[in-house]
Amino acid sequence: MKFATLKSAAPDGRLAVVSRDLSRAVDAGSIAATLLDAVERWDDVQAPLRALYDSLNEGSAEGSFPFDPAACAAPLPRTWQWCDASAFLNHGRLMERAFNTEPIPDFDTIPVMYQGASDDFLGPRDDVPLPDESLGIDFEGEFGVITGPVPMGADAAAALRQVRLLVQINDWSLRKLGPREMKTGFGFFQCKPSTSFAPVAITPDELGDAWHDGRVKLDLHVQWNGAWFGNPNGAEMNYSFGQLIAHAARTRRLSAGTVIGSGTVSNESRAAGSACIAERRVIEIIDDGAPRTEFMRFGDRVWMEARDGAGNAPFGTIDQRVVLAPAAD
Amino acid sequence: MKFATLKSAAPDGRLAVVSRDLSRAVDAGSIAATLLDAVERWDDVQAPLRALYDSLNEGSAEGSFPFDPAACAAPLPRTWQWCDASAFLNHGRLMERAFNTEPIPDFDTIPVMYQGASDDFLGPRDDVPLPDESLGIDFEGEFGVITGPVPMGADAAAALRQVRLLVQINDWSLRKLGPREMKTGFGFFQCKPSTSFAPVAITPDELGDAWHDGRVKLDLHVQWNGAWFGNPNGAEMNYSFGQLIAHAARTRRLSAGTVIGSGTVSNESRAAGSACIAERRVIEIIDDGAPRTEFMRFGDRVWMEARDGAGNAPFGTIDQRVVLAPAAD
Repeated sequence: MKFATLKSAAPDGRLAVVSRDLSRAVDAGSIAATLLDAVERWDDVQAPLRALYDSLNEGSAEGSFPFDPAACAAPLPRTWQWCDASAFLNHGRLMERAFNTEPIPDFDTIPVMYQGASDDFLGPRDDVPLPDESLGIDFEGEFGVITGPVPMGADAAAALRQVRLLVQINDWSLRKLGPREMKTGFGFFQCKPSTSFAPVAITPDELGDAWHDGRVKLDLHVQWNGAWFGNPNGAEMNYSFGQLIAHAARTRRLSAGTVIGSGTVSNESRAAGSACIAERRVIEIIDDGAPRTEFMRFGDRVWMEARDGAGNAPFGTIDQRVVLAPAAD
Repeated sequence: MKFATLKSAAPDGRLAVVSRDLSRAVDAGSIAATLLDAVERWDDVQAPLRALYDSLNEGSAEGSFPFDPAACAAPLPRTWQWCDASAFLNHGRLMERAFNTEPIPDFDTIPVMYQGASDDFLGPRDDVPLPDESLGIDFEGEFGVITGPVPMGADAAAALRQVRLLVQINDWSLRKLGPREMKTGFGFFQCKPSTSFAPVAITPDELGDAWHDGRVKLDLHVQWNGAWFGNPNGAEMNYSFGQLIAHAARTRRLSAGTVIGSGTVSNESRAAGSACIAERRVIEIIDDGAPRTEFMRFGDRVWMEARDGAGNAPFGTIDQRVVLAPAAD
């Protein structure tokens, strides 16, 4: 199944089912008002949502309309919890090498993960308001999952069974604020403004073989101002989503609607490019001694689309512009 | 006004208004179903809630009943965001001195704050399930605020005007997991299990002069297994809640229902004791070279109650027991 959240007067928008080819949509609000509601009542709503999805794909759904990603909020415009890992170790190792920092202890055996803000997610075409161009504005292309309830202490296999939906994420970052926040030990905070999502959340079965071992094995195509930036594949994720969820649930249960992110998708092959500017810069530092690529400016756009072998984009496309935030009153 | 959330079949419970002396309560669900709903529609619901509160205090509220803290969830059983600072610098400086760690840069001028998990808060009498007694189980007595919407870039004065409610918090911590997580730079995660709250959230006017300069100037009395542990006062907070909210909103807006915590209440005077075991242990390290006090064991209880000069406890009392979490299926 494929889902989107249409913007509405309500802060959590309105649930829509989207056709497999993303051409059409139909309001699903009579089954579940919002996607969060659907995830929380999954066992009750799965069958009627599936029936609606099937009828939409067959062209027989009453009241269907053309699907417009620009009308979409994030699939979850807000939720109870957002936890983001750094599960592509290639990315972390490049960062360490460039900055000559002390290796993170147990980096190969214990995932690193930060708690993000889940109160205000951005939609796939929303402008991205930020306070200051000098903060090192960067994108981070990621995959993620939305979970059902996970008990404390669930192992990776049990945790993986709680994956309800897959999502595609742009985890905006302000690189100039990161190092100080890492040094405090309290972790990322101001350096992680509101996170953006591709328009469509999908059940894992939609990916066929490309969802395997708890990984999204798709190329994540990234363009910055229309120019190719990278197309790393999710297959190289060093921890599975099952392992990441289990890590998050080690000392507490997770509520339904928890979003778990992979961290920046990153491949060992240089030909795959990068899914964030910081990684390209560290490669420049390693190769040439200094970074050449600057961070984003106001007005810049980023475009991200995961594609399968047939060229389909199962999550739709993120296409956003960074802008100066309006002054607070 | 004073509010509590009564446990119910709904995950967010049911809103109740509580009398000033915490003796009686009345269902407020017809005005706002939940406290989160009330905070999100504050301008619309404030007047009818105030009228109900007044009638309850006058003894004329229909359907009122004795207030039972044991029937309460956390005032917000879950919310969109929980940000916890470390705003009593005395605490941080003691920690640095004991462990001889590098001082946090700009500790005196920029608050440190971590993003916590807001998906599963515990009520004032709930057992606290944890997976392992050897993880260094500790309490942290804190004050906190619940905000309305805060625009990105709000200054401290504007931010303070968005304080809707004050709360009293026990920020449970697993000390053995903290140092590794701090070293990764990604910050606290597994070392911060579900957070607990005193039963009653109050509007700032309820404190009279004890709410001043964006600080809760009350003694926070803490007992561990019935023995005095500390009674530090909130007046020594080095950053005001206005400053803490503004820090959180520097690079993104905050949604209504955001909870901002003060961090462990800590006073320079040794006579005030401590609001967490870690602080007592670092004092023992500084004084005697080694800690004598162990962390909590399963079955141990912690009791916390903020008191005004007349001995009233405006937030009610936290009284909880730590227990072994049931095995995950």
